[in-house]
Amino acid sequence: MKKIGIIGGLGPLATVKFMELLNDDLEKITDNVEMIVINDPTTPDRTDYILDNTKPNPLPNILEMVKKLEKCDVSIIVMPCNTASYFFEEIVKNTNIPFINIVLETVKYLANKNAKKVGLLATLGTIESGIYKDLLNKYGIECVIPNSSNQEIITNIIYDGVKGGNPINLDDFYKVVNSLKDENCEYIILGCTELSALRQIKNLDDDILVDAMKILALNTINYLNIK
Amino acid sequence: MKKIGIIGGLGPLATVKFMELLNDDLEKITDNVEMIVINDPTTPDRTDYILDNTKPNPLPNILEMVKKLEKCDVSIIVMPCNTASYFFEEIVKNTNIPFINIVLETVKYLANKNAKKVGLLATLGTIESGIYKDLLNKYGIECVIPNSSNQEIITNIIYDGVKGGNPINLDDFYKVVNSLKDENCEYIILGCTELSALRQIKNLDDDILVDAMKILALNTINYLNIK
Repeated sequence: MKKIGIIGGLGPLATVKFMELLNDDLEKITDNVEMIVINDPTTPDRTDYILDNTKPNPLPNILEMVKKLEKCDVSIIVMPCNTASYFFEEIVKNTNIPFINIVLETVKYLANKNAKKVGLLATLGTIESGIYKDLLNKYGIECVIPNSSNQEIITNIIYDGVKGGNPINLDDFYKVVNSLKDENCEYIILGCTELSALRQIKNLDDDILVDAMKILALNTINYLNIK
Repeated sequence: MKKIGIIGGLGPLATVKFMELLNDDLEKITDNVEMIVINDPTTPDRTDYILDNTKPNPLPNILEMVKKLEKCDVSIIVMPCNTASYFFEEIVKNTNIPFINIVLETVKYLANKNAKKVGLLATLGTIESGIYKDLLNKYGIECVIPNSSNQEIITNIIYDGVKGGNPINLDDFYKVVNSLKDENCEYIILGCTELSALRQIKNLDDDILVDAMKILALNTINYLNIK
């Protein structure tokens, strides 16, 4: 039996929403797949470390989770967290198990759609690290980020809203989406799994939104050749 | 760091709903806890085996998940599935890691409430095996089960509705609840984690309902002394 290993807890809500996405797709297939999830919520904040390398480094926790997944003989490892993909090269250097990169799969998806200009909604860590921008540019796609006051709205939605469990004003969210539309973005990446969780919880269905976590789930299924 | 090991996939939806319950409680505490989940959806149906022992036995899959959790050095093992508690003794015989029994904890909770007569909503496997009835009686509590047509309604809600993803008629559900109330049940056990998942999804808030999965989550947290 094939086994999906999930590096979880980044954050815990996004992890269960990712599992729900996988469950929905796995239900449609005849072959069954085991899912093994390590949910370590003590992993230091990825954005904090990316913005200031003197802060605690989340990489040791991530590699510890990889080791546990190896012990469980998983066929593949996925990590439903965009910001943590900053550590992609360190992760693949430390394991022989195939690892699907949420950022790379999302960029390839947009390249297949012939996108030329896309907006990015993500943590400051994801934005500042350039993990999306660099890959998008490599595929000839321009990456537009929100201005600083709009980025503050997105940061608040991610940290106070989804992670913190406080009420979220969707008008604020759509204000940022519309400002990226006004800059002629053809698509807008939900490039933080907390925003993907928000999409599921609030049933956001704007066609322009490209949900990185959903793309990761579909690619996980496709990789296992179980469709 | 303390680590909760979860035997999951029985069913997959109930597993993520149980993780959500744990996440909600874990968020309120300062100490952090790792969660390791093995989600094997190929585990044969528990009720099928209990009703007919010539059907595939789910125990080997359950013990395989226990072994993987041991490899991950978990501090405690829990299994958000009432029916599978039929295998409780076999499980504890095969591991030295403390295992919390959802059925026992629910019965102890009712005994602490001085309950004398309770209704049981569960799979036919849970009902026929007597795992709830025997323990309830031991604590001097009478166990009332739905009549056969009402049990059919509950079986359909569990299998076609929650597991199958088909629409659920809550009027039917409350018809069964009310008939148990009419028999003077002081409490009604949601003794199937699919019914617990339904309570979360539909926000069922009837005070008479005692949610076994919620009790398992609270006891998991209490066991770890992290409150």
